[in-house]
Amino acid sequence: MSKTPIAINLGDAAGIGPEIIAKAFHQQPALLQGCFVWGDVGSMRRATAQLCGTGPSQPLALIGTPQEVWLVPPNCIPVLQEGDVLAQMPLGQVSAAAGAFAGRCVMAAARAALRGDIGAMVTAPLHKEALSAAGAPYSLYPGHTEMLQAVAAEFLGKPVNDMPVRMMLANDELRTVLVSIHLSLRAALDAVTYDNVLQTLLITHASLSRVLGRAPRMAVAGLNPHAGEGGLFGREEIEVIAPAMQAAAAQGCVLSGPWAPDTVFMRARKQAEREAEFDVVVAMYHDQGLIPVKYLGVEKGVNVTLGLPLVRTSPDHGTAFDIAGTGRADPSSLIEAVRMARALLAEAGNFPQGRPKEN
Amino acid sequence: MSKTPIAINLGDAAGIGPEIIAKAFHQQPALLQGCFVWGDVGSMRRATAQLCGTGPSQPLALIGTPQEVWLVPPNCIPVLQEGDVLAQMPLGQVSAAAGAFAGRCVMAAARAALRGDIGAMVTAPLHKEALSAAGAPYSLYPGHTEMLQAVAAEFLGKPVNDMPVRMMLANDELRTVLVSIHLSLRAALDAVTYDNVLQTLLITHASLSRVLGRAPRMAVAGLNPHAGEGGLFGREEIEVIAPAMQAAAAQGCVLSGPWAPDTVFMRARKQAEREAEFDVVVAMYHDQGLIPVKYLGVEKGVNVTLGLPLVRTSPDHGTAFDIAGTGRADPSSLIEAVRMARALLAEAGNFPQGRPKEN
Repeated sequence: MSKTPIAINLGDAAGIGPEIIAKAFHQQPALLQGCFVWGDVGSMRRATAQLCGTGPSQPLALIGTPQEVWLVPPNCIPVLQEGDVLAQMPLGQVSAAAGAFAGRCVMAAARAALRGDIGAMVTAPLHKEALSAAGAPYSLYPGHTEMLQAVAAEFLGKPVNDMPVRMMLANDELRTVLVSIHLSLRAALDAVTYDNVLQTLLITHASLSRVLGRAPRMAVAGLNPHAGEGGLFGREEIEVIAPAMQAAAAQGCVLSGPWAPDTVFMRARKQAEREAEFDVVVAMYHDQGLIPVKYLGVEKGVNVTLGLPLVRTSPDHGTAFDIAGTGRADPSSLIEAVRMARALLAEAGNFPQGRPKEN
Repeated sequence: MSKTPIAINLGDAAGIGPEIIAKAFHQQPALLQGCFVWGDVGSMRRATAQLCGTGPSQPLALIGTPQEVWLVPPNCIPVLQEGDVLAQMPLGQVSAAAGAFAGRCVMAAARAALRGDIGAMVTAPLHKEALSAAGAPYSLYPGHTEMLQAVAAEFLGKPVNDMPVRMMLANDELRTVLVSIHLSLRAALDAVTYDNVLQTLLITHASLSRVLGRAPRMAVAGLNPHAGEGGLFGREEIEVIAPAMQAAAAQGCVLSGPWAPDTVFMRARKQAEREAEFDVVVAMYHDQGLIPVKYLGVEKGVNVTLGLPLVRTSPDHGTAFDIAGTGRADPSSLIEAVRMARALLAEAGNFPQGRPKEN
């Protein structure tokens, strides 16, 4: 196991973040060795107290730097306090303070990851309205991905546009990487360009090669019904996707397609009774990839940000304000996110863009 | 059970059509009472002979008109020969003759359905390349749906554009109706208009009300990621979909949405352990609806053409040239298509566009 600490970001303190983090430490102590909470000791104390009922709650250990995680006694949850202790947030309510605090933790952890102080960050969910209420800079970003992209670009002294990222969604059955995410479908169509598709293929190849220890078998989805049916229902497959695939193949990618979108995900599905045909599907837009990932309602979906010079994973669900504090939140997805972060970390240092030695 | 005959169209004679039809008659004699094959006696004889191995094959009964189906002895498969007996087609090969013959059967059965000679048509798969090789008029149509639309428009003396049809896909778990089908995704976006969405909602309401005996609970999918996130990622939900939904609600439709496309299908999924939230999802484009329908690889998918003044269902698979003649083809989907046709027929005569009394 890597000796580089992994930060688990608190997420929005009014949501289920603290609770699922506490449950994950409780249920999977071995897996979470070397992990610590980047967040708030008060929020974590409330979560551990709620979990234990009337018995003694799992102790927290305040640490001052990520490396101190190795000094924490077993069965304690290490917490790195971000700034001052956060005033108690009413659970399940949008709050600018919780939004700003969550955003601050993400940015600080991202900088620590870029510096190499931590090996990976696993992020509990943010609440978009809380981020928006928090004002700039947090309100500028629709979510984690864009925030991390901005921090990484600043760190490397690059324009944000030269800092391509891709989202990968993975669960027990299926992995998919998306060419674009938070765009209208119309804008997403315009984003299906030679450069974007090629970049997605190269990022996917590089990232999954680390996880699998070999080149991933990538299935490339078409954009149009039946993958355009030979140009009859759209020509993007012929004019954009296939040429990008050729260029990627010339750079060592193992791929096939463009496949009809309505059956490629079924073929990539890993099931007990049969091997999947592919390791990952490259999807041309958000819902093309997310509909199949979410269709089974699998509890263990993991969201991975690929392409950045840092490792970041997160559970595939939101803040679940409706059940925050009820004890019903399921930590499975967060636990899988930690597992995935470890897998990505196994050969870290080998980032697509190359990691800077010093800022 | 209705006393109106149901035609089962042969489909492409070089594919699995004849074989799955023979199997369906063999496995489900009660369900298939009153059904007959609109097609070719030679192709059906080959299929029944192949099924029985060395034993006696299920006898065929040639009928001259659909009504004669009621005179056929039990355990015989009634066949209405379309024109001359078709020369033996090599299985698994594209042939212009098989394409033309299949197309002719579809058009003839459609006209019979429009005249009221048959109650419904269940169509075995066509092969697009064979249709294309067959030349006009068959080569003009990407598939059954467009062919039926043209025949119905001609029958009613209307322009094809005034003959709206919608495709419904249904399996054990999920029903979805598509606003558009065989269009490029870019053209499909342009087809998300107030009129098209409203028409889809009204057609879905009318058709499923017949099947369910009550107004269906319709979930309307958004077009954009997160259903546009309040206008942030696209405004079609606000400007097009919601107004069309209001108009449909004013006409008695029971609906909700527009919902985030990546989770609405999961919520509409019927499973043993829990009720689905909705009876049907109205999807804004082909792959939005077909990805979840096909993701489970369910063998029992049924394709239903809604909106036409005739009942038409079909299995949710193709001609499977690769396994034609091997005896491996699964008739489940065809059997479900017959069951669905019967359900739609239960209150026939009550078509959305009004059925003409006479041509």
